Amino acid sequence: MPRTLSDLCVHTITTKPWSLETAVEKYAVAGIRGISVWQDAAEAVGFARAGRILADSPLEVVSYVRGGFFPHSSAEKRARALDDNRRLIDEAATIGAPLLVLVCGAEPQQSLSESRRQIQAGIESLIDHASDQNVRLAIEPLHPMYADTRSAINSLGQANDMTESIDHPQVGIAVDVYHLWWDDQLEGEILRCGNHDNLYAFHICDWKVPTTDMLLDRGLMGEGCIDVPLIRSWVQAAGFRGYHEVEIFSNEYWALDQDVFLDRITEAYRNHS
Amino acid sequence: MPRTLSDLCVHTITTKPWSLETAVEKYAVAGIRGISVWQDAAEAVGFARAGRILADSPLEVVSYVRGGFFPHSSAEKRARALDDNRRLIDEAATIGAPLLVLVCGAEPQQSLSESRRQIQAGIESLIDHASDQNVRLAIEPLHPMYADTRSAINSLGQANDMTESIDHPQVGIAVDVYHLWWDDQLEGEILRCGNHDNLYAFHICDWKVPTTDMLLDRGLMGEGCIDVPLIRSWVQAAGFRGYHEVEIFSNEYWALDQDVFLDRITEAYRNHS
Repeated sequence: MPRTLSDLCVHTITTKPWSLETAVEKYAVAGIRGISVWQDAAEAVGFARAGRILADSPLEVVSYVRGGFFPHSSAEKRARALDDNRRLIDEAATIGAPLLVLVCGAEPQQSLSESRRQIQAGIESLIDHASDQNVRLAIEPLHPMYADTRSAINSLGQANDMTESIDHPQVGIAVDVYHLWWDDQLEGEILRCGNHDNLYAFHICDWKVPTTDMLLDRGLMGEGCIDVPLIRSWVQAAGFRGYHEVEIFSNEYWALDQDVFLDRITEAYRNHS
Repeated sequence: MPRTLSDLCVHTITTKPWSLETAVEKYAVAGIRGISVWQDAAEAVGFARAGRILADSPLEVVSYVRGGFFPHSSAEKRARALDDNRRLIDEAATIGAPLLVLVCGAEPQQSLSESRRQIQAGIESLIDHASDQNVRLAIEPLHPMYADTRSAINSLGQANDMTESIDHPQVGIAVDVYHLWWDDQLEGEILRCGNHDNLYAFHICDWKVPTTDMLLDRGLMGEGCIDVPLIRSWVQAAGFRGYHEVEIFSNEYWALDQDVFLDRITEAYRNHS
């Protein structure tokens, strides 16, 4: 049976050609209830104005994307990354987003274990500021093909370990099917994540066969090899009741008429998630 | 201190433009002691003749590459895959290779867990024939970016689980740094693999930053972000005493003068592995 759209959230990057105002208007008309806002979309209209656009809309702001990129071989760069993240937390608060998604970063000039230590230290040093601004932080484990420069956190098991080690309600996890679908430990780690109250966000899309670009060739749910409904069932069994966020980077879809694409998103959500 | 070449093996695919005869001659002159033979290189000269070329050379044949691709949604195709693998085992025996590397396969039309069951069943059904031919089988866990069509075995932990479940001396594991470097469990899983006498092969190359092609942009040791010497130290601590096999697929390097490339391989091996 097709799903209703009541849990559907769309990331502004998914419909990148649209301005924030257009995205808000189009999503609302399509019956979408949630929106996750990427920095470029908010910055283009100014953060205060972005906050008003969103507050005046029927949409709920689900998350702000994306902070992180903590590891660097120089202490000066690590300090600058923390400043950037504090500003991102402020921006999230300004636009009314309760959650900042963290793409944690990786520094190919140093070991993954050193990068992981710097990630944990970076997140821990942001907790006070994030608490003051009432913005939660979500570690997003990224696919291992991004371990060189985008994230040294590459499995949900690792993200669970780090989040439980940080052990603070301000810090949780974003589970993205694209990054994690291949993992034979996924069901158990999702349950563990939920049992520790660390499951803060759920992102969906699909892995196209073949995938022609390591970054910009994500698919709509149902057109690839990820069993999104199965992973959703695990996330729901783990107690997650939040939005299901469609986050697609795709040169192919960005080149399409975005109204047509949005129709395909809601159709894919209804029938293949 | 630079390493000697005594443990160096090169895969024929690494110098794909060369025929088997040329590769054998050039490797030997360069002081390389081991060769792993891909099917295309042996088939081009005929398997019996490939066996004679190799027997007449000073090189040791380390492995034959590659069998596998067990999962299919149709029983007929699965049976055909087994026939193909039996033929590959025969070819390995003909050319004098003691090991057949298995790229286990994946079928995007079915679940990963079903593909994994089919992989294990496939390998188990080959054991008698492999034993008769005195050819061992090595499961090669592949990077998760290949989970759609190339392999449903995507971590060393998974390969260890399956190999221990099969529990037969004819079946072990090939550890390739390119596929496994990102895994925070790697050191422990390598030790576990060695402790169970399942560490049958060790493949090296590097992960380029950025990587521009998901299949054909591997790097030479030292030019990417993999700490090959660290992983080698784990493999050696696990008791591995076999060859260190350079396996590089690279449009860039295949376009280079292969004599120049072979010099760079031995230089990279001496100084960055």
